[in-house]
Amino acid sequence: MFIVFEGIDGSGKTTQAKLLAEKLKAFFTYEPTDGDVGKLIRAILREKRDVDNRTLALLFAADRIEHNKIIKKELKKRDVVCDRYFYSSLAYQSVSGVDEDFIKNINRYIIEPDITFLLIIDIEKALERKNKDMFENKDFLEKVQNKYLELAKEYNFIVIDANRDVEEIHRDILKHLSKHLP
Amino acid sequence: MFIVFEGIDGSGKTTQAKLLAEKLKAFFTYEPTDGDVGKLIRAILREKRDVDNRTLALLFAADRIEHNKIIKKELKKRDVVCDRYFYSSLAYQSVSGVDEDFIKNINRYIIEPDITFLLIIDIEKALERKNKDMFENKDFLEKVQNKYLELAKEYNFIVIDANRDVEEIHRDILKHLSKHLP
Repeated sequence: MFIVFEGIDGSGKTTQAKLLAEKLKAFFTYEPTDGDVGKLIRAILREKRDVDNRTLALLFAADRIEHNKIIKKELKKRDVVCDRYFYSSLAYQSVSGVDEDFIKNINRYIIEPDITFLLIIDIEKALERKNKDMFENKDFLEKVQNKYLELAKEYNFIVIDANRDVEEIHRDILKHLSKHLP
Repeated sequence: MFIVFEGIDGSGKTTQAKLLAEKLKAFFTYEPTDGDVGKLIRAILREKRDVDNRTLALLFAADRIEHNKIIKKELKKRDVVCDRYFYSSLAYQSVSGVDEDFIKNINRYIIEPDITFLLIIDIEKALERKNKDMFENKDFLEKVQNKYLELAKEYNFIVIDANRDVEEIHRDILKHLSKHLP
C-alpha cells in the first residue's frame, strides 16, 4: 500500500508518518526529496529566493516524477509511507495563486496513493509547535488548511484530529487503516 | 521584438542569433539559462544523469518561467534575441517520447515570440561542425529536425537554409526581418 500523510507544518504529520512506517515495516519517504530537484526546492524555500510560484509548482512536479520511480520500486517489496505528496502542491501552491488546473495538469503522471491521511490541527497549536522554523504566517496556514479540507472531499482523505497526544493519534490512524486492510 | 532562433546543434543558430543581436543592439539570451534551474538542466545533460524525459521537460518549463521575467523586463527597453526557446522543448522532448500535449500544457504561460527563425542544415554537416561535443546521434538529430519542420507550419517559423556561409545566412535573415518591420 502507498500511504500519504498531509497537513500543515506543525500538524505532527511527520511524527505520525514515521510511527506508522515503523509499525508497518514500511519504506518511509518524503517530499521534497533529497534528489537534485528536491535539494534545489529546499534551497529556494530556505533562502526565500525570488521565484515564481508556478516555477516552484513545476519543480515540485519534476521532483515527484523522479520520486515516483523510487516509490514504484519500493512498492514491489513493501508498503510505502510518504510525508507530503501531490496534495501539498495542490494546497500550498493554489493558495499561493497558482491555477489548480495547471497544478493537476503538470502532475498528470503521478502514482495515486491508496490512502491519504490529513492531519488537522488548531492553527495556534501548530504555530506553537513549530515557532522558529515556520516560514508562513497564521493567515496563510489557515487558508492552506481550509484548502486541504476542500481537497479531502475531492480525494477521499481520512481526516484526523491532530489536537491530541501522539499515541492517541497513532492508535486512531491504525484503527482507520485496519478497515482498509484485506 | 522578441526573436527566437531554433535548430539542431551544429545548425549555426547561436552564431546567427549573436550576429543579429549585435546588428539590432538587442539583448542576447539563451536556454537553458544560467539561472538555478538552467544550471541543473546543464548538469543533467552533461553528466547524462538518469532522469525521466518528463522531468527534464518540467525543468525546462520552470527555467523558462524565470527566463520570461528577464525577457519581459528587457523587452521594455530593446529587442530580445533568444537562442533556443519553447520549440526546442517541443522538438527534442517530443522526439524523446514525451507527450506533445503535456509539453504545451506545462508551458502554457510563456511569452510568444514575434518571429522564430528555424535553421535547417544537412545532418552530416551539423555533425561535422560539432563533432566532439555532440550528445545525440544522427538518427535522433534527423528526427528532431523533421519535428522542427512540422512545427514550422504550426507556428509560422521562417525556415532558413543554413547550408551556406555565415554572411550569406545573416543577410538572408536581415532580408526576412525587414519584411516584418513596421
